[in-house]
Amino acid sequence: MLSKAQVKYIQSLSHKKQRESEGMFIAEGPKIIHELLNEYPAGIRHIYATRDWINDQQVPGNIELTEVDSAGLERISQLKTPNKVVAIVRQFPEKSAIQVRNHFTLVLDAIQDPGNFGSIIRSADWFGITQVVCNHECADIYNPKVVQATMGSIARVRVMYTNIEDWLQKNKDVRIYGTGLQGKTVNEIGILKEGILVIGNESKGIDEKVLELVDEVITIPKKGKAESLNAAVATGIILAFVCLRE
Amino acid sequence: MLSKAQVKYIQSLSHKKQRESEGMFIAEGPKIIHELLNEYPAGIRHIYATRDWINDQQVPGNIELTEVDSAGLERISQLKTPNKVVAIVRQFPEKSAIQVRNHFTLVLDAIQDPGNFGSIIRSADWFGITQVVCNHECADIYNPKVVQATMGSIARVRVMYTNIEDWLQKNKDVRIYGTGLQGKTVNEIGILKEGILVIGNESKGIDEKVLELVDEVITIPKKGKAESLNAAVATGIILAFVCLRE
Repeated sequence: MLSKAQVKYIQSLSHKKQRESEGMFIAEGPKIIHELLNEYPAGIRHIYATRDWINDQQVPGNIELTEVDSAGLERISQLKTPNKVVAIVRQFPEKSAIQVRNHFTLVLDAIQDPGNFGSIIRSADWFGITQVVCNHECADIYNPKVVQATMGSIARVRVMYTNIEDWLQKNKDVRIYGTGLQGKTVNEIGILKEGILVIGNESKGIDEKVLELVDEVITIPKKGKAESLNAAVATGIILAFVCLRE
Repeated sequence: MLSKAQVKYIQSLSHKKQRESEGMFIAEGPKIIHELLNEYPAGIRHIYATRDWINDQQVPGNIELTEVDSAGLERISQLKTPNKVVAIVRQFPEKSAIQVRNHFTLVLDAIQDPGNFGSIIRSADWFGITQVVCNHECADIYNPKVVQATMGSIARVRVMYTNIEDWLQKNKDVRIYGTGLQGKTVNEIGILKEGILVIGNESKGIDEKVLELVDEVITIPKKGKAESLNAAVATGIILAFVCLRE
């Protein structure tokens, strides 16, 4: 049975401040919970799920498990269409340091739309990129809409928030790429085993001061008339070219 | 001044049935209205805008123009953050026929998320693809969230709704490509000047019967661990490779 205190606690985690002070976040839906059970079982504190989900699933004994009916699920879900299971999960431990040598690292400058942000984390995971550095103008990785859009990749990609200008300054010995409307085309770049790629804000692009630290701008040639591409789509295209093109 | 009847009429256009019976849709925000004024001025029936937008803009005399204050804008806007201007626009004339010979045509099978759907139209426009064929399981192109996500590309890309199985059957003399987890990689395809590309549903992929009509499946190689890519991102990647790669 779901207590009033539990409902209140879960609802409180929709607010960033509360997530930060508790060090927790909410994850929802069988797919994401499945990935978290595989990749980060020690982080899951409490699972609230419908009987059919519970019957289908092995849940380690150290995780609290509460059966809820569909009305209960609706009270704790952040989704328009609640989907069987909600989990309260500990935020990931801070990554001590990002390895830039021999790695490809993604840097996000003010990616604010939760759907775009989550999609980018998912694309990074698809292309084997496991570290993403963000400035504080980016969406919160633990925002329920971001968690949802990562489709479970949140369990595998480490996201660090910092002042990206200072961070890039410290890592200038690795080649820094940025996205822009004029530069070398994605076709000309070739596979990159090492590098840092900066993705700019949805409408303003890369901040001027950050752009000064970029060694090479990569552009996606336009064949038609749209003024720009969606930021998550543009990121996916560049990652595909620099990770796959031989 | 905004009348009660106007507010009621505009709000009614958030419903598909009403949009269809009126043959109208709502577009919002300076960027999209700017594109519509350029590409489809004859289709704009009424613009409601704040004074600063009106002072900045040339509006043809045949378009009704109503100044609204921010409270008025809020009453008629579908957006969380209303953005200066709302327009009532006539739906685009039905395209008589899609030209498949010497064109690249996109076919969408049940792309249901409005953000994904709009993003795909925007990517098509970026890569110079001007015709998109959808089945009735896809989102409605005139859904305000779709219109928003196209960022104005709705003015340039013609979208046709039909039974795609029958439509593909009729166009089997052009090579039909589909997306899938196993097939030829995007790297191996090369530039396509002519072809039909079928994009599958966000979670189920391409419908079985439609898949039978596909001549070649294109896949995006996975380097990491995510189970899948976002549908709009995957579409963008494939379009980039078949439109740009030399």
